[in-house]
Amino acid sequence: MTKYVYTFGNGQAEGRAEMKNLLGGKGANLAEMNLIGVPVPPGFTITTEVCTEFTAKGRKAAFDLIEKEVQAAVAYIEDITSTKFGSKENPCLVSVRSGARASMPGMMDTILNLGLNDLAVEGIALKSGNPRFAWDSYRRFVQMYGDVVLGMKPHSKEDIDPFEEIIEHMKEEVGIKEDTEFTVDNLKTLVARFKAAVLKVTGKDFPVDPWEQLWGAVAAVFESWMNDRAIYYRKLNNIPVEWGTAVNVQAMVFGNMGANSATGVGFTRDASTGENMFIGEYLINAQGEDVVAGIRTPQQITKIGSLRWAELQNVTEEERASKFPSLEETMPAAYKQLMEIQEKLEGHYKDMQDIEFTIQDGKLWLLQTRNGKRTGAAMLKIAVDLLSEGKIDDKAAMMRVEPNKLDELLHPVFDVNALKTAKLIGKGLPASPGAATGQIVFFADEAKNYDNSILVRIETSPEDLEGMNIARGILTARGGMTSHAAVVARGMGKCCVSGAGALRINYKTRTMEAAGKVYNEGDWISLNGSTGEVFDGKVKTQEATISDDFAKVMELADKYTRMTVRTNADTPHDAQIARQFGAQGIGLCRTEHMFFEGARIKAMREMILSSTVEGRKEALAKLLPYQRADFEGIFEAMAGFGVTVRLLDPPLHEFVPHEAAMQKELAAEMGLTADQIAQKVHDLAEFNPMLGHRGCRLGITYPEITEMQARAIIEAALNLKAKGVDARPEIMVPLVGTVAELKNQTDVIHATIQKVFAERNEKIDYLVGTMIEVPRAALTAETIAKEADFFSFGTNDLTQMTMGFSRDDAGKFLPDYLDRGILKNDPFQILDQHGVGLLVELAVQKGRSTKPKLKIGICGEHGGEPSSVEFCDKTGLDYVSCSPFRVPIARLAAAQANVKHNG
Amino acid sequence: MTKYVYTFGNGQAEGRAEMKNLLGGKGANLAEMNLIGVPVPPGFTITTEVCTEFTAKGRKAAFDLIEKEVQAAVAYIEDITSTKFGSKENPCLVSVRSGARASMPGMMDTILNLGLNDLAVEGIALKSGNPRFAWDSYRRFVQMYGDVVLGMKPHSKEDIDPFEEIIEHMKEEVGIKEDTEFTVDNLKTLVARFKAAVLKVTGKDFPVDPWEQLWGAVAAVFESWMNDRAIYYRKLNNIPVEWGTAVNVQAMVFGNMGANSATGVGFTRDASTGENMFIGEYLINAQGEDVVAGIRTPQQITKIGSLRWAELQNVTEEERASKFPSLEETMPAAYKQLMEIQEKLEGHYKDMQDIEFTIQDGKLWLLQTRNGKRTGAAMLKIAVDLLSEGKIDDKAAMMRVEPNKLDELLHPVFDVNALKTAKLIGKGLPASPGAATGQIVFFADEAKNYDNSILVRIETSPEDLEGMNIARGILTARGGMTSHAAVVARGMGKCCVSGAGALRINYKTRTMEAAGKVYNEGDWISLNGSTGEVFDGKVKTQEATISDDFAKVMELADKYTRMTVRTNADTPHDAQIARQFGAQGIGLCRTEHMFFEGARIKAMREMILSSTVEGRKEALAKLLPYQRADFEGIFEAMAGFGVTVRLLDPPLHEFVPHEAAMQKELAAEMGLTADQIAQKVHDLAEFNPMLGHRGCRLGITYPEITEMQARAIIEAALNLKAKGVDARPEIMVPLVGTVAELKNQTDVIHATIQKVFAERNEKIDYLVGTMIEVPRAALTAETIAKEADFFSFGTNDLTQMTMGFSRDDAGKFLPDYLDRGILKNDPFQILDQHGVGLLVELAVQKGRSTKPKLKIGICGEHGGEPSSVEFCDKTGLDYVSCSPFRVPIARLAAAQANVKHNG
Repeated sequence: MTKYVYTFGNGQAEGRAEMKNLLGGKGANLAEMNLIGVPVPPGFTITTEVCTEFTAKGRKAAFDLIEKEVQAAVAYIEDITSTKFGSKENPCLVSVRSGARASMPGMMDTILNLGLNDLAVEGIALKSGNPRFAWDSYRRFVQMYGDVVLGMKPHSKEDIDPFEEIIEHMKEEVGIKEDTEFTVDNLKTLVARFKAAVLKVTGKDFPVDPWEQLWGAVAAVFESWMNDRAIYYRKLNNIPVEWGTAVNVQAMVFGNMGANSATGVGFTRDASTGENMFIGEYLINAQGEDVVAGIRTPQQITKIGSLRWAELQNVTEEERASKFPSLEETMPAAYKQLMEIQEKLEGHYKDMQDIEFTIQDGKLWLLQTRNGKRTGAAMLKIAVDLLSEGKIDDKAAMMRVEPNKLDELLHPVFDVNALKTAKLIGKGLPASPGAATGQIVFFADEAKNYDNSILVRIETSPEDLEGMNIARGILTARGGMTSHAAVVARGMGKCCVSGAGALRINYKTRTMEAAGKVYNEGDWISLNGSTGEVFDGKVKTQEATISDDFAKVMELADKYTRMTVRTNADTPHDAQIARQFGAQGIGLCRTEHMFFEGARIKAMREMILSSTVEGRKEALAKLLPYQRADFEGIFEAMAGFGVTVRLLDPPLHEFVPHEAAMQKELAAEMGLTADQIAQKVHDLAEFNPMLGHRGCRLGITYPEITEMQARAIIEAALNLKAKGVDARPEIMVPLVGTVAELKNQTDVIHATIQKVFAERNEKIDYLVGTMIEVPRAALTAETIAKEADFFSFGTNDLTQMTMGFSRDDAGKFLPDYLDRGILKNDPFQILDQHGVGLLVELAVQKGRSTKPKLKIGICGEHGGEPSSVEFCDKTGLDYVSCSPFRVPIARLAAAQANVKHNG
Repeated sequence: MTKYVYTFGNGQAEGRAEMKNLLGGKGANLAEMNLIGVPVPPGFTITTEVCTEFTAKGRKAAFDLIEKEVQAAVAYIEDITSTKFGSKENPCLVSVRSGARASMPGMMDTILNLGLNDLAVEGIALKSGNPRFAWDSYRRFVQMYGDVVLGMKPHSKEDIDPFEEIIEHMKEEVGIKEDTEFTVDNLKTLVARFKAAVLKVTGKDFPVDPWEQLWGAVAAVFESWMNDRAIYYRKLNNIPVEWGTAVNVQAMVFGNMGANSATGVGFTRDASTGENMFIGEYLINAQGEDVVAGIRTPQQITKIGSLRWAELQNVTEEERASKFPSLEETMPAAYKQLMEIQEKLEGHYKDMQDIEFTIQDGKLWLLQTRNGKRTGAAMLKIAVDLLSEGKIDDKAAMMRVEPNKLDELLHPVFDVNALKTAKLIGKGLPASPGAATGQIVFFADEAKNYDNSILVRIETSPEDLEGMNIARGILTARGGMTSHAAVVARGMGKCCVSGAGALRINYKTRTMEAAGKVYNEGDWISLNGSTGEVFDGKVKTQEATISDDFAKVMELADKYTRMTVRTNADTPHDAQIARQFGAQGIGLCRTEHMFFEGARIKAMREMILSSTVEGRKEALAKLLPYQRADFEGIFEAMAGFGVTVRLLDPPLHEFVPHEAAMQKELAAEMGLTADQIAQKVHDLAEFNPMLGHRGCRLGITYPEITEMQARAIIEAALNLKAKGVDARPEIMVPLVGTVAELKNQTDVIHATIQKVFAERNEKIDYLVGTMIEVPRAALTAETIAKEADFFSFGTNDLTQMTMGFSRDDAGKFLPDYLDRGILKNDPFQILDQHGVGLLVELAVQKGRSTKPKLKIGICGEHGGEPSSVEFCDKTGLDYVSCSPFRVPIARLAAAQANVKHNG
C-alpha cells in the first residue's frame, strides 16, 4: 500500500533529504535534520502525490486515502509532546505549511497555532502562565485561518481585510494605537467579533473542532497549488503542475513566549558576497512573521554582524548594546548551539544554508533549512571556497554554478541604492543584459553627438549598426527577443530593451512619450537590459569585474567539457572579446553587416540595382577589397581557430533605401530616375521576406556574389598565411533546402577558390558547409551531407519555419501563448526540443549516416542558452556558438551537460 | 559479360518489347515486331547503358566497350541483306536513329543512307538502275550528316544552312525552281560542293569510310542526349538523365525507288476521336521525312479516308482518284498486308498503335510501332472500346487513362481553327485550365457590367471574389500557380492565367499594355488557362461535354480505389458541382470567403477594430446568421457526406481596407477617426504574415471567433437535421503546431457545442480535427493526435514552411530553380515527396501510433495531382480532397495508385 504520510521527531524520521520529490523541499529537510540530530519540533509530511490526487479527483477522494495515516501521525505528535488535540488541559497546537519541491511564492504559506479554540486557549493560558500570549495567539489564528482557509482575505488590494477593520475599530474604541496595547479582555472581545464576522461572511460558525481546522488547512494548501499566482509562478519557472506540493504539519513552538524566547533566520555564508561568515537576524519575543514584516527592527545574530550593522546605521555602541544587542550577547547558550548547528548543516548539505529557527523559553528549535539563494558573485565564491575548503570536489564545484547567473557578472548593473529612487517609465523585453544610462537620440547617426547616448527607435535596421555600436544602450518599441536590435545588441554585449510597446516614438517631432511624459532628444533615461525596465533620468551604474573565482570555474568547465564553444562575431573587436571569454573559433560570422558602412552600401546598391551580370560584377569588384580586409581582421583575431563565414543571407530589399529622399539621392548618383529606383525597390519587396529570395537563393540567381565572397575569404586567408598567421576559413552556405542548391553553390565556391589558388600559386585548407535552418534540409540531411564538410544549425530560422512563427510578428500572440501556458517558453530563447529538436536529432543522425565524422555545430541564439546547450551535448554536436558575452555561460553549460550525461 | 548490342532481323531478335529500359522504345518494338512476324529491316540496337557510359566517361571508354559487338552486328545485317559495308558492288546502307525509353523531341533523330561514298553510290546506281535516286540519296546523306554529326547546322534560325545555300545557288545557276528538277550531273556537282563546304567549315574531309561514318553517327546520338533541348524536355517531363538513349542501326529500305515504292504513317484508331478506324497517309516515291515535311500533299491510305478527305477539301472524285488515290487503290496487295499488320500489332500490344512503314519496290517494311499519342477524348474512347471489344480487362482499361488528360474534357477549349489565326499577346502560368474570351475589366465589381468579362488584375485579393465568379476568366500580372487568383479560380473551375509578368497594368488609366498594344476596359481578349496563353480579341471556344466513356472510366475507378475523394468547396454551388463529379464529402471548406460580401465585411471589420471582447462578440453576433445560413447550404449540398469546415485562417489584415478613402468611409460608419482606422490597419500589418497572427492563433487570442463559428456550424447542422437532412460536420482547427494550441481550441469548440445542444435539447454527431500544415505538427503528431478526431494535411502551407518558400514570393527564384534543374518540379504543384513527403509519412505513422484508426486526408492543392495522389495512397491516407474540377482526376489517380500498390 502506498504510504502518504511521513512522520519525524525526536531524532527519528520516516523520510530523508533525497525524498524531495515526494515530501517537498521543506518536508525532506525537516526529516533529514531529525536524522542528523538537529532539534526540530515533531510533525509529519503529507506527500505531493496526495496533492496530485486532490487536483485530479477532489477533496474527498484525496482525504479518504490519508485519513487513517493522518490520525496516526497526529497521535505521534501528541505522544512526543505529551499534548492532546482539542484538550483543555494540554492542548496540541500545530502549524500547517505548504512545501513544494522548489520554494514557490504565491502558494498558501503558513497557518500557525492550529488547534486553538475556546477551551484550548484556556489550557495554553494556564500552561504558559501568560493569558495575553494565549489570547493573542488565538486571535491571530482565527484571523489567519479566516483569511486563508475560509477565503475572507480580500481579492484586491484596495479592499480592507475584515479582521483588520475590526482591529482598527477596537483600537479607536479603547483609545490605543498599537496591537500590543490590547488587554486580555480586548483580545477576547476581538476573538468574539472575528468569529461573528466569519459567520456573517461565510454563513458558518468558525470551526472549533481541531480536526475540522486541520482538514480545512490541508485542503487550503492543496487548493493554493492551483491558484492564479502559483500557476503564473510555475509557468515563469518551468515547474510542471504534476509535481504538486506536500503539506507539513508540525508541533508549534513559540518564539513569543517572553523575554527568553526568540525567532530568527540566517545564512551560513554571506548571500550577497559569498564571504564565509554567518549572517542572520532575530527578534526576541516574536513569531516568525515579525522578523520579515518590518514592524520591529531585527537584531543581528553575531556580535561582529551587530557591530557592522551599527556602523552602517550610525548607531552608537551604547544604543546598539542596549537596544539592538546580538543573540551572541543576549542568549549566549542558544547562540553557541545555533552556531554549531549551522556549521553541521552546511557540512552535511555541503552548501550554504538558509535556516529558520525559534527559541522557546531558552530552547532552540530549527524550523527549516534549505540551500540559500545567492547573487552570481556569491554563487561563484561559495563554490570555489567550498572546493578549496575540501568540502566538495572540483566537479561538484562546477556543477554548483548556475550558468545563467554568470550573465550578471559580465555586464554593468545599476547601483542598488540608486535603483530605490529610480522612476520606472516603461517595460519591454530584457533583450540584452546590462544597465545603461544616457541621453536619448532617435537616429543612429546622431549617437556620436553625445558621450552617453541611448538609441531609441521604433525598430532598428542594419543601417543603424554603427550608431548602435556607439550608443550605451538601445531601446525599441517593437520587436521581440530575437529582433534585429536584440540580436545585434547581444552580439555587442550592449544593453538593450526591445518591444517596449507602450512607448510612443515620433521621429518627426523627435519625441518619445512614456508614462505620460514627453521626452526629447538629449533627455536622460536609463535601461535595465536584464529586466526590460526603462527609468526616467540618470541611474548610477556599476561596471562588471571578472573575479579569480570566475576564472577558476571556467578552468573547471574546460576540464569537463566535451563540446567546444565558438562565438557569433562579425568584427575583429567582437572576435577578440569572445576569445578573451574563451571562445575557440567563430561559429557564425555574418557578412551582411559588412555592406552597410560608407562607400560599401553605395557599391552594394549599385550591385542590386544593376540589371546585368557585368554591372553586378563591376559593383562587386568594388566591394571585394572591403570584404577581404574585414576577413583579414577577423581571421587574425581568431588565428588558430576555425572561422565560419556565412555567405550573404538577407533579402536584397534590406539594402536599398526606402525613403523617397534617399531614393532621389541614389538616383542622381547612379544616373537613373527616382522612379526607376522606386520601381526596383518596389520589385524587391516581398510578402514574406523570411521565406523569400534570400540565403543561397541569392547566390544561385547571382553566382557572382558567391564568387566575390569566396574570393575575398580565400584571398584574406592567403594574405595572412604570407604573414605567418594561421587562418582557418570555413565557408557556410545559408538557407539550403535541397542538396542541389548546396551543390550549385559549392561548385561555384570550389571553382573560384581553385582560380585564386592558381593566381597566387599558393594553397590553404578550407571547409565548405551549410546552415541547417530550413526544415527540409534537416529532413534530407543524408543527401545534403554529401556536399557538406560541416553542418551548423541555424536554430533561429529553423524555429521560425518549423513552428511557423515569424520572429518579427510573434509579438502579437507569443505573450498570450506564454500567459496561457500554451507554450512553456519563448522558443526563440529556449530551444523547442520536442519539435525543432526532433529535426536537429534527425539531421544529426541522417548527416552522420552519410559522413560519420561530419562536424556539426549550432549557431542560433540557442547556442548560449544552458538548457539548449545541454540538448546539443546530448545530441552529439561538436560545438555551440553564441554571442561573445554568452561564451562563458555556454562553456559552463556545455561542461555541466557533459557531466550530467557522462558522469 | 554485359551485352551492349542486340540484333534483330528475319523473324528473330535478341531483344523484346519488355526491354524498353535497355533498348529504348523504338529498339524494343523493332525486336518485338520481328518476333511476331512483322517484316522489319534487319538491324541492331546499342543499349541505353552505353549512353550512360558515354555521358559519364566519354566516347573512347564507351566505344571500347562495344566495338566488337557492333562489328559483329553489322556483319549480321550484311549477312541477311547480302550486302557489304563500303562495297562498290553491293554496298550496305543503314539508318541510325536515337530511341529513348520515352519518345523525346530535341534529340538527334535520324541519319539515313549511311554507308554511301563515292564508290558505294555507283553500286547503288547500278543495283537500283536509277542513278538519279542514288545521287540524290548521296547528296541528302552528306547534307544530313554534315548538319547533324559534323555540327554544320546553324544554331539560330536566322542563319542559313550552308548546304541549303549551295542548293539555292545551284538552282539559280541551272535555272530551276524545284529540287526534283536537278539532273544527275547537277547532283554530282552538289555532292562535290557539299564536301568542299564540309572541309572549309570543319577543316576536315567528309568521312568516306562507312565505319567512321557509323561511329560518328552513334556518337552524335549520344551527344544529343545532353543537348539543351533534350535537357529542357527531360526537365519538363520528369525524365531522369540516367535513363539514357539507345541507338538503332538498321538496313535501309527505300520508299523513293520509283512508282512501286512508298512511305507512310498511320494510327490504328483515330487519335483525335478514338474511333476504331485506321487513319493514315502515304506518299509514293518518297522518303519518310517527305510525308511530314508538307511539301507534297500526302494521300490517305484507306479509300474511305480518302473519300472523306476529298469531301472536306472540296476535291472532286475525278481529281481525287487521279491525283490523290488511296493506297488501297494504288497498291492493293501492300495495302492488304498493311491492314493485316496493323490489326496484328494492335492486337499484340492491346493498344492503339502509331506506325511507320515503307514500301520498297512493292515490298512492305515496318519501321516503327509505338502506342499512339491521342487526345483526352480518344484516350477514353479507346480504353473503353478495347474493354468492350474484350481486348483488355477493366483494370487495364482504367490504367490506360491518364488522369491529367481528363482535365481537357472538363473545361471549354478553343476552336482549333480559330486558334490558328489568333494573335498571341502574352504568356503567364496555366493557373486554371479552360478557354475564355471576354471584355477586359480592371475592377472586380465591374465584371457584372459585361456579359462576358475577363478580370485583369495585377493580383487578386479576397475582396475580388464576387467579380471573379462573374468573369469568364481571370488574368493576373503577378502570382504563381498557388496565388490567390489561381487557387480560387481552380476552385471555381474558371479559366485563369496568372503571373503574366510582361503585362503592364495601370489601374489609374484602366489600361493594359501587352505586346506593344494598349488595351482599354471593354476591349476583347482571350485566355487559355491550360497553356497560359493570352490572345488578342475574340477566339471561338467550344464547351466541354462529358461522355459515356468518361462515366464508364469513373465507374471503374470507383471499383478499384481504396481512398475516397473529397472536394475543396466553399459554396453550395461548388459543392454541387463536385458532387456531380463524384466527390464524397468536402475536405476543405474555407470560411474566410464567407466574410467578404456586403454587410458581412462590415460586421467583420467591426469585430476586428473592436478593442473589447464585448465589442467583438457584438459584431460576431451579426456574422452568426450569415455563417449559419452558408453552412446550411453547404451541408445540404453534401448531405450524407462529411464536410470539413476550417475555422477562420487568414491574418485579419486581409479583411481591413487599405486605401485611405475606404478607411475614411469605414471610420465614419464606425464613429472613429480615419487616423484610428489607419493606425489599427497599420498595427495589423506583419513582416511575414504567412508566419504571423493567423490560423488557430486567432482563435486562441479571440476565442469568441471560434465560439461563433462552432455555434454556426452546429446550429446549421441541427437545423438541417430538423428538416431530415443528414449533415455531417467536421470542424477543423488550422495552423496547429502544438497539442496545447489544439487543446485550447477543442475545449472552446466542445464547450460551445454542448451549450448549443443544451439550448436546442438536441444532439448531432460531429468531429473535431486539425490541419497538419506546420512542420512541428507533423513532427509531434503522436501528441497532437490525442486531441484530434482527424488530420488533414494542408500541403500548401506545409510546403511553404518545410521548404522555406513563400508561395507569393517564390516567383523570384523558382523559375530559375526549375531552369537549372535545382528543383525538378514546382513543389506547390507536385508534392516534394523526399522532403515534405517525409513529414507526411512521419505524421501518419506518429498519429496512428496514438490512434490506429485516425482518419487522415489531404486538402492541399496536391490532392488533385496524380503523382501526389499516388503518394497519398502509398502513405495510407483515407482520402484526398481537391478543387471540384479535379475530382475526376483524383478519383482515377487514386484508383490507379491502389492498383499499382496492391495489384
